[in-house]
Amino acid sequence: MILALAGGVGGAKLAHGLTRILDPSELVIAVNTGDDFLHLNYFICPDLDSVLYKLAGINDTERGWGIRDETWNFMESLKKVGGEDWFQLGDKDLATHVERTRRLSEGQTLSEVTQALCLQHDVRHTIIPMTDHRVGTVVDTKDGDFFFQDYFVRLRCAPEFTGVHYKGMEDAVPAPLFNQALNSPDLQAIIFCPSNPFVSIDPILSIPGVSDAIRQTEVPIVAVSPIIGGRAVKGPAAKMMQELGLPVSATGIAEHYGDLIDGLVIDEQDASLSAQILPTGTGVQVTNTLMKSAEDEKNLAETALNFARLLSHREF
Amino acid sequence: MILALAGGVGGAKLAHGLTRILDPSELVIAVNTGDDFLHLNYFICPDLDSVLYKLAGINDTERGWGIRDETWNFMESLKKVGGEDWFQLGDKDLATHVERTRRLSEGQTLSEVTQALCLQHDVRHTIIPMTDHRVGTVVDTKDGDFFFQDYFVRLRCAPEFTGVHYKGMEDAVPAPLFNQALNSPDLQAIIFCPSNPFVSIDPILSIPGVSDAIRQTEVPIVAVSPIIGGRAVKGPAAKMMQELGLPVSATGIAEHYGDLIDGLVIDEQDASLSAQILPTGTGVQVTNTLMKSAEDEKNLAETALNFARLLSHREF
Repeated sequence: MILALAGGVGGAKLAHGLTRILDPSELVIAVNTGDDFLHLNYFICPDLDSVLYKLAGINDTERGWGIRDETWNFMESLKKVGGEDWFQLGDKDLATHVERTRRLSEGQTLSEVTQALCLQHDVRHTIIPMTDHRVGTVVDTKDGDFFFQDYFVRLRCAPEFTGVHYKGMEDAVPAPLFNQALNSPDLQAIIFCPSNPFVSIDPILSIPGVSDAIRQTEVPIVAVSPIIGGRAVKGPAAKMMQELGLPVSATGIAEHYGDLIDGLVIDEQDASLSAQILPTGTGVQVTNTLMKSAEDEKNLAETALNFARLLSHREF
Repeated sequence: MILALAGGVGGAKLAHGLTRILDPSELVIAVNTGDDFLHLNYFICPDLDSVLYKLAGINDTERGWGIRDETWNFMESLKKVGGEDWFQLGDKDLATHVERTRRLSEGQTLSEVTQALCLQHDVRHTIIPMTDHRVGTVVDTKDGDFFFQDYFVRLRCAPEFTGVHYKGMEDAVPAPLFNQALNSPDLQAIIFCPSNPFVSIDPILSIPGVSDAIRQTEVPIVAVSPIIGGRAVKGPAAKMMQELGLPVSATGIAEHYGDLIDGLVIDEQDASLSAQILPTGTGVQVTNTLMKSAEDEKNLAETALNFARLLSHREF
């Protein structure tokens, strides 16, 4: 069984590639919930939705987020009556948030709600929130601290990034199925999807017990670099690395994860960075990491799995 | 100044007719809020919205409720994810509820919110909720008691009607502008729009102090019968009258309002009922009361105003 840690769009793509190779019983996808927030009375889980919509085959590939063939009549009308329109909510997407909020208010856990939404969308692979507790990723900047959506959507990542902390993390525990996967004797590898290390993967790693469990497990830990040719495919990862003084490259990613990972998958155009990364003790696999098609997603998933297999010296 | 008491669609039509004759300073429209309810985390005010949309010129005339050129993508998606779909919410309509809920949660009164929504929709006439307090019309039936929307939408008015009571009414007071209109020296007439007497007009009359104020005022009180030829134009008024043992006719309406009203406007096809109603002391005006066009609305408004003028023996 493979455990994948994922954030939003990049994570969703690799997760989708993994689902084309692995059966539902062979894969658990644990998703960042640090970006989750209450907006207009709904509980919105951007990363869970990105993974859900992608696996359900209803994601919008042009826009990169939300649902395909979306309409915006709610949002346009809300704007007309002077409502809060800084966070775009499509008419179809809205239904997910409303139904999630209803189920949560009835006392269901986020894991249970996510399972129900997967079922309704015929998604058979396991998508789970990293935790059922409410935690909030707070982006520390030179202009002050902001909840992720404020920083990302409202401020368009303009303030200079200095770090991240989490609200509510000290009381959080991994979601039951995530915990079970982390400690399962069937676990064969952990894949860090090419998501933002600071605001997508680190929140998952920051849940009390998760990093320790990952360090203690003997299975290979493979990360896929979200930085290609010195740029992030999407989002502020590159800007954040620069502002932190990290090399804006796969090398910086290797530096950031340090000895937590056993191997890093990097892009062909970054092949020369192997010489910088290998001496630190992290294995490197070079391949095409830019996922433009379902075929790219499957190929990258296959490469990451093979690389993990190689690192473990065990067949799975 | 004229004060109109209105429920949903029928009330909205006559209110619209009145706005075509009277300036914003000459008309106050007090609207039933007994049907208001919290659904999917939004506070929905069906009657206020019917009047608002009508006066804004964006109401759907075919369907009879909601917004014109509406789309239903939210609702269809909500159905797909197993959400509550018994109450139809259009994508555009939804924005009204979301913005109202946001404003209420910020501490604005329903009067203030309604004023803001009117402003956003360029409605210059005064629409006010009957009260800023939260009251709930409970329909008593032989199958038990139901909140109005349950009875009306979910149960399609099937249970046998025995009466009405209100949750929270004992603590309610008329909304400030409603109270001001009721006690204004400029008040010239009160018009009961052709709305359901039991679940639209009676809730307004049941706010502590309102009936007394109406009885004490010396201005003419004119009701427009919502029953034409033994049938309600819309909604369960006729069914309710029958189940209560009232004549299902303008006579029953006159009986119901009793000496609270000075005159009743009835339809041409009910002209013969004058002979039953006049002896009870209620004046009668016969005209076309079926409002199929803006012209009908204006004509009925004009007739009701002229009738009130006649009853008061004063010019206004």
